[in-house]
Amino acid sequence: MKLYSYFRSSASYRVRIALALKGLPYDYVPVHLVKNEQSSDAFRAVAPAQLVPALVLDGPEATTLTQSLAIIEYLDETHPAPPLLPADALGRARVRTIALDIACEIHPLDNLRVLRYLTGELKVSEDDKNRWYRHWVETGLEVVERQLAGHPQTGRFSHGDVPGLADCVLVPQIFNARRMDCRTEHVPTVMRIFEACMSEAAFSTTQPSACPDAT
Amino acid sequence: MKLYSYFRSSASYRVRIALALKGLPYDYVPVHLVKNEQSSDAFRAVAPAQLVPALVLDGPEATTLTQSLAIIEYLDETHPAPPLLPADALGRARVRTIALDIACEIHPLDNLRVLRYLTGELKVSEDDKNRWYRHWVETGLEVVERQLAGHPQTGRFSHGDVPGLADCVLVPQIFNARRMDCRTEHVPTVMRIFEACMSEAAFSTTQPSACPDAT
Repeated sequence: MKLYSYFRSSASYRVRIALALKGLPYDYVPVHLVKNEQSSDAFRAVAPAQLVPALVLDGPEATTLTQSLAIIEYLDETHPAPPLLPADALGRARVRTIALDIACEIHPLDNLRVLRYLTGELKVSEDDKNRWYRHWVETGLEVVERQLAGHPQTGRFSHGDVPGLADCVLVPQIFNARRMDCRTEHVPTVMRIFEACMSEAAFSTTQPSACPDAT
Repeated sequence: MKLYSYFRSSASYRVRIALALKGLPYDYVPVHLVKNEQSSDAFRAVAPAQLVPALVLDGPEATTLTQSLAIIEYLDETHPAPPLLPADALGRARVRTIALDIACEIHPLDNLRVLRYLTGELKVSEDDKNRWYRHWVETGLEVVERQLAGHPQTGRFSHGDVPGLADCVLVPQIFNARRMDCRTEHVPTVMRIFEACMSEAAFSTTQPSACPDAT
């Protein structure tokens, strides 16, 4: 498999973690988002949505998958061990909800293209842009904290004592939060789980600074 | 089951369609987003994330599910007929990708709370806010069109000839697009599928104007 990735893209990092948890080898193909390489014709031919991550599967058809959560669900269905989702439907719903609380409520608002629209088209100041960024991260993580804190199924990780889909999404969001100096003291359970994840090789060896394209 | 919904919330509409496709009965509990009823203590006790839709399951535990895509996957797992996802992993990945292309790349940017932040905190003008809205809808739908147009698995609906998860997400987005006068001529396949869906009772009987709280 080939993974089109950008070291700082948190959606790419989610998939890098999942691939590492599954022990699946892949070729890393960097796509430099700040240099707009995702808009190139070459990348568009691979991934019509022009978003990273894109995972090109092996085989004659070389099917390209996009959207990190769809990719991770696909990897989990085709390589079931170790599972990234619980076996029961309610547990699966819980894990997907936590993942979507980040992937739909926080991350889309702080995407590079969105920040560029704010400053470029709407002439929002650098300060206001940073305030916007922190607002969605800080309020969004509060929701995640409420899902996790004190819940009987929260364990060493988001759901039980093995890392799964929710953790694949949570950890990259914390990297973004830290890079942008967002508050995290108000989300102690989130941060405890983040630290637990970072002590695992699947999370630490795939982190932005460990990527081949890291600068 | 009880569905906390707001007639104009497109995430709520997704779940209303899924429940209708499955033929599952439920009580409709309106939550008026414009009046901020989602911020009330009463609703927070039901759904800590304070987002609609929230589906309260039957049974002594009255578990509340949130996040529309997680709810729909749960309904599909617990009430498998008719299926809302294809049987094969690649097909499932395709359908989830289309759903996420809307749920992660378009919808979060045009949420009521986001628009309020733009005009309230960032003092963006009404015109610029509407331009923002249309920008993300129009460019986002273009990506969906590229996934659908000419793809061998696109049928009468997004994936084959029966409606599924991708259609549950696509149709509500088009309602939003129309309400905000977004262009749709550039996405003919999307619009053809939208019309096919609207000829089905599961989509038409659950549309915003047919909801008990419609004004």
